[in-house]
Amino acid sequence: MIYEPTSFREKLDLFTDLWSPRVIAEVNDYQFKLVKIHGDFVWHKHDDTDEAFIVVGGKMEIEFRDGSVELSAGEMFVVPKGVEHRPRATHECHLLIVEPRGVVNTGDTGSDRTVENDVWV
Amino acid sequence: MIYEPTSFREKLDLFTDLWSPRVIAEVNDYQFKLVKIHGDFVWHKHDDTDEAFIVVGGKMEIEFRDGSVELSAGEMFVVPKGVEHRPRATHECHLLIVEPRGVVNTGDTGSDRTVENDVWV
Repeated sequence: MIYEPTSFREKLDLFTDLWSPRVIAEVNDYQFKLVKIHGDFVWHKHDDTDEAFIVVGGKMEIEFRDGSVELSAGEMFVVPKGVEHRPRATHECHLLIVEPRGVVNTGDTGSDRTVENDVWV
Repeated sequence: MIYEPTSFREKLDLFTDLWSPRVIAEVNDYQFKLVKIHGDFVWHKHDDTDEAFIVVGGKMEIEFRDGSVELSAGEMFVVPKGVEHRPRATHECHLLIVEPRGVVNTGDTGSDRTVENDVWV
């Protein structure tokens, strides 16, 4: 039997909306989510979990209250739980996020930027 | 403060040995490990966990008892827990593995291909 790999490129071609993570895989109760970002997101934090950002295309910045990190394709950064952060991208950027199932994109904020969780592509 | 991203390329430049995963990041109790592979590994399985393979450079194959999957850069595959598999690569390939802390590279086999766990780079 020939099993099919999950291609980031193919999955990214299936949606266009920004700041709306799509689940592409699970490892136990952890999810791998692709997300397209452009512009500034809202400040938020996740009190119960760390969150991994892996850039698969483009560049982004994660702002913290005391600084920032710039990420390009082939780079990753783990935001520790409880740390306020704001992702932003001057040009459209494509990310792979790894975190436990059930994490909401806007964390603790209840922002109008909150999107439905656990949407697969 | 300027925080530093973790670059797959920079981390890969820091070691040359094959089949010897190096931890580069953690999200809670899950680890991200870079590994260089070439040739055939041993058949093994992990009875307690799924295991994600993400190719960051080159091509590889994962053989199963009932088939196989081919993976290229920008593609991933999750091997379910308990499923026997054998990674292999005709040319050197570089992978990112995501799995819980404590997973041994050879799983249940006790093979002489077993390497020290939880080695960071």
